[in-house]
Amino acid sequence: MAGEPALAVSTVIFALRNDGEAGAASLRLPLVRRIREPFDGCWALPGGPIEAEESLAAAAGRNLLETTGLEPNYLEQLYAFGDTDRSPGERVISIVYWALVRSDEASLAAEGENVRWFAADELPELAFDHNQIVDYALWRLRTKMEYSRIAHAFLGETFTLAELRQVHEAVLRRPIDPANFRRQVEGSKAIIATEQRLTGGRHRPPRLYRYNTSVEFTDNGPLAHS
Amino acid sequence: MAGEPALAVSTVIFALRNDGEAGAASLRLPLVRRIREPFDGCWALPGGPIEAEESLAAAAGRNLLETTGLEPNYLEQLYAFGDTDRSPGERVISIVYWALVRSDEASLAAEGENVRWFAADELPELAFDHNQIVDYALWRLRTKMEYSRIAHAFLGETFTLAELRQVHEAVLRRPIDPANFRRQVEGSKAIIATEQRLTGGRHRPPRLYRYNTSVEFTDNGPLAHS
Repeated sequence: MAGEPALAVSTVIFALRNDGEAGAASLRLPLVRRIREPFDGCWALPGGPIEAEESLAAAAGRNLLETTGLEPNYLEQLYAFGDTDRSPGERVISIVYWALVRSDEASLAAEGENVRWFAADELPELAFDHNQIVDYALWRLRTKMEYSRIAHAFLGETFTLAELRQVHEAVLRRPIDPANFRRQVEGSKAIIATEQRLTGGRHRPPRLYRYNTSVEFTDNGPLAHS
Repeated sequence: MAGEPALAVSTVIFALRNDGEAGAASLRLPLVRRIREPFDGCWALPGGPIEAEESLAAAAGRNLLETTGLEPNYLEQLYAFGDTDRSPGERVISIVYWALVRSDEASLAAEGENVRWFAADELPELAFDHNQIVDYALWRLRTKMEYSRIAHAFLGETFTLAELRQVHEAVLRRPIDPANFRRQVEGSKAIIATEQRLTGGRHRPPRLYRYNTSVEFTDNGPLAHS
């Protein structure tokens, strides 16, 4: 149909990475440099049109794979952005997903002249309304961190309480008292202590925990994760 | 572009109405009878294509106005549905909004041969994946009711505690103890008692309450309500 808006899927990909000068992990996301107008040369979220036989989530997963070589550990629809003036010269409606990848995998991600990881809180001026989209994704991530088991997606199968606390600190951007955190986590049913301890030559290696998978991880309610 | 998916906006419109045989208000939504294939003669959510100069939310508001003659008291994006097989013969991606309208306004809504209000929990087999969409909207409404001031959108500026409790009962589909409800509501900062009482010839007319608008009603986080 002539004049019908164009449709795209874009993906905000978060990982905790140790790329900074300081030792602490920070929340980072990969961006792609645009090589055509509009916004030629600007950084943008990875994305593009939907293929005929592809679901929306599959298109988002493809964005992630093509940009970073990674598979998502968590993928959720964020929002459809459709303001009439968001793309000069053409009406584009972007259905945006957000993805989390594990820190150990993110450190292996491809990077190049036209793909670079940025600190989520120190982004340049991005193409289109992509700064606003990242702000909204950050808000969603932080809200979710407070009440769900989303931190899991940044970690491996087992993790120490210090690792889990560092995820919360990096995402929420505030220091968390270790003793309070331990009390809170151990008081909840979300985490189970395993019999294993972190390997390495330490005198008192810390205990490893895992998420309690018998508690359901419902984020999309009755929608299947497709 | 040939082969590009078609895009539509549909809207799930909820209101509390007293249409049933019993006296209690129930959660109801208007549906539109389809008059062409696919699903000719089936009931469906109101919706259609987006106009060139129209935001997504404006398209959803237009669905509501054209179907019921009403303005929404609350309007929020629900989800974009894009499975490849959801519409026979054509790929259609539907960006779905949900709206709440006030009970007193809903009772004035237009109804006709091709527009009818149904009890949200007793729907017929709808066109496309619209049963699944309504289920998801119901889940979102019920989740939101638990932690936000969404019930407000069903009520006028002032209301009695009994009216507020009836909204919660109709949406959550369970009886709520009046004394507990009063205690909980009065203990929160969400509601403020006014000096007014319900008019009418009663011996002890109940007090009217209003929402505390100094507490922010943030549902979309940093996104503007557009």
